[in-house]
Amino acid sequence: IAGNFFGPQNNTYIRVSLPAVCFVWQIAMVILFGVFIRYDEESDEKGWHEFKRSHNITSNIENDFYFRYPSFQDVHVMIFVGFGFLMTFLKRYSFGGVGFNFLIAAFGLQWALLMQGWFHSLDPVTGKITIGIESLINADFCCAGSLIAYGALLGKVSPVQLMIVTLFGVTLFAVEEYIILDLLHCRDAGGSMVIHTFGGYYGLAISWVLYRPNLNLSKRLNGSVYHSDLFAMIGALFLWMFWPSFNSAITNHGAGQHRTVINTYLSLAACVLTTFAISSMGQKKGKLDMVHIQNASLAAGVAMGTSAEFMITPYGSIIVGFCCGIISTFGYLYVTPFLEKRLKLQDTCGIHNLHAVPGMLGGFVGAIVAAAATEEVYGKEGLVETFGLSGKFENRSMSTQGAYQAAGTCVAIAFGLVGGVCVGFILRFPLWGDPADDFCFDDEAYWELPEDEETIPPVLEYNNHMINKHQDTHESQFSLEES
Amino acid sequence: IAGNFFGPQNNTYIRVSLPAVCFVWQIAMVILFGVFIRYDEESDEKGWHEFKRSHNITSNIENDFYFRYPSFQDVHVMIFVGFGFLMTFLKRYSFGGVGFNFLIAAFGLQWALLMQGWFHSLDPVTGKITIGIESLINADFCCAGSLIAYGALLGKVSPVQLMIVTLFGVTLFAVEEYIILDLLHCRDAGGSMVIHTFGGYYGLAISWVLYRPNLNLSKRLNGSVYHSDLFAMIGALFLWMFWPSFNSAITNHGAGQHRTVINTYLSLAACVLTTFAISSMGQKKGKLDMVHIQNASLAAGVAMGTSAEFMITPYGSIIVGFCCGIISTFGYLYVTPFLEKRLKLQDTCGIHNLHAVPGMLGGFVGAIVAAAATEEVYGKEGLVETFGLSGKFENRSMSTQGAYQAAGTCVAIAFGLVGGVCVGFILRFPLWGDPADDFCFDDEAYWELPEDEETIPPVLEYNNHMINKHQDTHESQFSLEES
Amino acid sequence: IAGNFFGPQNNTYIRVSLPAVCFVWQIAMVILFGVFIRYDEESDEKGWHEFKRSHNITSNIENDFYFRYPSFQDVHVMIFVGFGFLMTFLKRYSFGGVGFNFLIAAFGLQWALLMQGWFHSLDPVTGKITIGIESLINADFCCAGSLIAYGALLGKVSPVQLMIVTLFGVTLFAVEEYIILDLLHCRDAGGSMVIHTFGGYYGLAISWVLYRPNLNLSKRLNGSVYHSDLFAMIGALFLWMFWPSFNSAITNHGAGQHRTVINTYLSLAACVLTTFAISSMGQKKGKLDMVHIQNASLAAGVAMGTSAEFMITPYGSIIVGFCCGIISTFGYLYVTPFLEKRLKLQDTCGIHNLHAVPGMLGGFVGAIVAAAATEEVYGKEGLVETFGLSGKFENRSMSTQGAYQAAGTCVAIAFGLVGGVCVGFILRFPLWGDPADDFCFDDEAYWELPEDEETIPPVLEYNNHMINKHQDTHESQFSLEES
Repeated sequence: IAGNFFGPQNNTYIRVSLPAVCFVWQIAMVILFGVFIRYDEESDEKGWHEFKRSHNITSNIENDFYFRYPSFQDVHVMIFVGFGFLMTFLKRYSFGGVGFNFLIAAFGLQWALLMQGWFHSLDPVTGKITIGIESLINADFCCAGSLIAYGALLGKVSPVQLMIVTLFGVTLFAVEEYIILDLLHCRDAGGSMVIHTFGGYYGLAISWVLYRPNLNLSKRLNGSVYHSDLFAMIGALFLWMFWPSFNSAITNHGAGQHRTVINTYLSLAACVLTTFAISSMGQKKGKLDMVHIQNASLAAGVAMGTSAEFMITPYGSIIVGFCCGIISTFGYLYVTPFLEKRLKLQDTCGIHNLHAVPGMLGGFVGAIVAAAATEEVYGKEGLVETFGLSGKFENRSMSTQGAYQAAGTCVAIAFGLVGGVCVGFILRFPLWGDPADDFCFDDEAYWELPEDEETIPPVLEYNNHMINKHQDTHESQFSLEES
Repeated sequence: IAGNFFGPQNNTYIRVSLPAVCFVWQIAMVILFGVFIRYDEESDEKGWHEFKRSHNITSNIENDFYFRYPSFQDVHVMIFVGFGFLMTFLKRYSFGGVGFNFLIAAFGLQWALLMQGWFHSLDPVTGKITIGIESLINADFCCAGSLIAYGALLGKVSPVQLMIVTLFGVTLFAVEEYIILDLLHCRDAGGSMVIHTFGGYYGLAISWVLYRPNLNLSKRLNGSVYHSDLFAMIGALFLWMFWPSFNSAITNHGAGQHRTVINTYLSLAACVLTTFAISSMGQKKGKLDMVHIQNASLAAGVAMGTSAEFMITPYGSIIVGFCCGIISTFGYLYVTPFLEKRLKLQDTCGIHNLHAVPGMLGGFVGAIVAAAATEEVYGKEGLVETFGLSGKFENRSMSTQGAYQAAGTCVAIAFGLVGGVCVGFILRFPLWGDPADDFCFDDEAYWELPEDEETIPPVLEYNNHMINKHQDTHESQFSLEES
Repeated sequence: IAGNFFGPQNNTYIRVSLPAVCFVWQIAMVILFGVFIRYDEESDEKGWHEFKRSHNITSNIENDFYFRYPSFQDVHVMIFVGFGFLMTFLKRYSFGGVGFNFLIAAFGLQWALLMQGWFHSLDPVTGKITIGIESLINADFCCAGSLIAYGALLGKVSPVQLMIVTLFGVTLFAVEEYIILDLLHCRDAGGSMVIHTFGGYYGLAISWVLYRPNLNLSKRLNGSVYHSDLFAMIGALFLWMFWPSFNSAITNHGAGQHRTVINTYLSLAACVLTTFAISSMGQKKGKLDMVHIQNASLAAGVAMGTSAEFMITPYGSIIVGFCCGIISTFGYLYVTPFLEKRLKLQDTCGIHNLHAVPGMLGGFVGAIVAAAATEEVYGKEGLVETFGLSGKFENRSMSTQGAYQAAGTCVAIAFGLVGGVCVGFILRFPLWGDPADDFCFDDEAYWELPEDEETIPPVLEYNNHMINKHQDTHESQFSLEES
């Protein structure tokens, strides 16, 4: 291994640890799913027939499946192609970017179904968790928290470490989500707080603990090439296009989903313009930076995660997008370098600017919009439905709701930071096969790489090459003889 | 800048103009949206509850959202990934292709919501425009016109010019759409006329005015490389696959959407076969050309834009696709070179063959199919619904409808040509930062580019390289000493 | 042509044969569609109005279109982008991978509508086939069989041969599907048997007949490069993400589709973990292999094709996924090399491990799950609906159903093997323009290729290069003079 040449190096040998973790955890999933997970009444064959009868439903189209499945598939694309390809931008870590994203999301969603089930839908009588299409969306959401954290760690950790990040990430997510959504009774359909703020600070805290002072040894690989930026653009665009589905996937049927889509769509469009503007202003010659376009133009989706389902109004959405494009691009231009230099915080993908800050912002925007909600605008039943003000929350005033929303944002930050620091220390045990400082951002560490692109000889060239080689030999012999 | 070396060059410095345009226009959007745009009754929280009550609707699934959202997301993918990646085929203008497409679509859709709103859904009492999912689809459609125009200009204009193309493109679009759909009362669900014919001729007219006699100075960059053609194939396939959604997105609920999908699907499939056939026949050695596969195979979708919702019959759809594949591929083989040589018309993506001609054809096919419609085939209520023959159009005969459809196509051509020439002259002011003739098709002009691909050394090679370098030095020293 | 240099070579000249086949077959499609194909009652304008009236339906949302369209579009993406890009992994056959996939799928789906129509929905009175959204899904499915077969042949056959593979593939598919689904009355919504088992063995049998003893002459091109593996990952991920739609696209409305999605989703997630585990264990240094990640992680979707719509339980699904990841990755590591060496079976994409074996396995899993079905779990009407036990199958016991399911799997294998051998012999006629052994895996044979990537000079470098060249000349002149 190259490490021998470059001097002391961490051992990236994962032939034992990775399979061990995968097998142990996957077997645990089999057992726990066997004990706990069942179909819910809308996906169970017998249950659905009974449900239709008891609810006096005549048409199968009333199955929640048809309200949510298109959004679910869009969210699924965001998780695997969106996040995955957004992380292919590094010139020699594209396999790791999209591949490890695939691995940890596939693990995370199983663990999420269990964790979220225990906290949200465990039947106290049967002791079972029942799942349906909404559970799958929530599981995908739950993974997103850990995938965001991966963004800060990209290129610097081993897949085994990522499995640990995900195991704890999903666990922490389920707890903070329970506190924010159930105990504080916040609304957060698109997860500005529970997904992005938490995931962002979780990743930043881990990265801070794992600070590598000599990371510049890998500097030559910490950047993009022309085509890797295009692959990343695939991820960025699928995230951008499907964000309306992300925010609306679990909002209320009818006007709720409808409005959330409109708000997110508008906000994202506005964000693109200010991102291009600041990106051009930020460079001496006025040239645009692909990093900004790929990332900052998404910040509006993050920031609308809480308030998109509220009556924020179309122009309100545009204003949020307007501001987010500016803030996020500024972040990439000035804050990320500052964090790295002063706070010893290495954030490969800049999740601070794309998730942590816009998420936090979105939480507070949501608080304000919630506090400003009136019966005049929402209608009586609309207000109850939108904010879930029934049961023991029946008498909560809107300003109280706003205060709880703000408190929820703080909970998300706290969980992210504290959880991240703890997990970071676990990851510092020298067992997990992470690469040495001079071997970061390099797929060579964990992937069998194909030979290099330059070595594809087209038939004729290959052939000519062979002839030339032959001639060269002759010539050099000749020149040797001559001399 | 390289320009200094190559002699006189336009100034591609956009650090002032691009941010200025973005900010001014985005702020205008905020204000205009604040004044004019509101949620419609199916996305407004209070409104939907009232709508359900007044229309006696019991289920949220009747919200228009559930009829149109899957198609909307497909259209959204076509606009951003489809058009965007189709324009990445140039070897060194992929950033510009997908990036500027992103910028102008994000601006265009906001402006489209306003323009289309003023013309189609301004409430005379409240003075407000109300928007829902169908408005978003229409806004995406409206952008498509300008994105098509971009296809002719690709690589030869600055982002600021593109913003102007889009501002006027969307404005013209809304006017011609109002004339064609409202005044002439044509049907054009997939926009053969209003989108493709208009967009195609708009782009061609602009390109004609902006003719660059010395464009061959950039010839070395006006072509593809292996991988850029694959990126373009992503765009082409997403356009091809989702075209059934494009044409059916705003057709009538029920059989209307259903039939439109079937017709478009069949037509596109037939088009692929004739495209491959002509592509192979057009080259001396019978080899296929990726340009044809990427573009001409889409022509059927364009040509079915008007008639796909009619009862054109499955084999009728296949015949249209059959012909379009032939015509469009011939266009790429012979017409585009002819236009460039004789008419001084430089059409980078060949929109003449993909949009202008198939769109026009689609308009006339639609006219014929409309004129041939009978009550026997459509049923009485079907005929009224499909062609919207109620109110003041109640007594319009089908042959009259056909004539109006044909007239609509001519209106679209006229708007495209006249509008394009005017906009072209605006773009000739030497203010907009367009590149010099020898600096076209080059991302270097507007993007901070990453270092080159060839310079990624894998760890070991990098290392060996260093060793070799060292040895080389020694050797050359040696040889120097020797000599 | 390079062939002249390398000695005797098959003629890859397809300028006559490919257009001829395309035109003849497409014209045949026009005629046959004209004679046979009509809209069904849910896509026909008049028919749908009558259908609503006769079935007492008040809302258009009851149109089958709204139950199936989102899944249809996902399946469509799988066929064209999923299969297409999965086959771009070869370093110099990416055009052929995605391009020929496009060609044969576009032809196959038209032929499938006819073949499946004749066998399944030919109206004996009118002599017409009526089509709707479900027919389009089935047509896409039917193509999948031939696209799978293409996987084994990738890089070794001409497009004309592929058209023949597809013509017979679709024909055989329709027959075996009729036997399995109609005569044996098996359930196979996601096609473990009818699609994957058949397609897999069909391709393997063809490849076995077309064995090329000197294929190692093309060895240098039979592999991937870094970026081609990323393109393949796009295909792999879209297949993986949308497989729940694939398996659920034509299952029963309501709980049927809902449950199928959950089962497939879980199974695929589990499969990813065991794939990563075995991939790492299989390599001496524990490094992961992209081939496994791209392919083996999909095996669970294949294996759930039959049983996903049954009440297999969530943990049952995970167990199937768990096993498939192991089996399929082992296949790539050990079985494919063995087959090539011992059985003279060259399987470019390893469809044996991704389709043939998991498909067969899925057929038998389906048989077991069907045999174990009880009224207690499904409910009385659920059992009837899920297994279609009405009419003449009313009294079939579940164990009998299981036996028929197992028999169906054997029918699929038999059709694949026998059909494939026959088609293989047809393909051996020396008429079809297949490449010589030393010209395989090379797009050069059938595509006009753009110049090479290395030759893109950025403006400045190009310029410096020119200067250097000049200087070089001077220097060498100088040194010549000196010497």
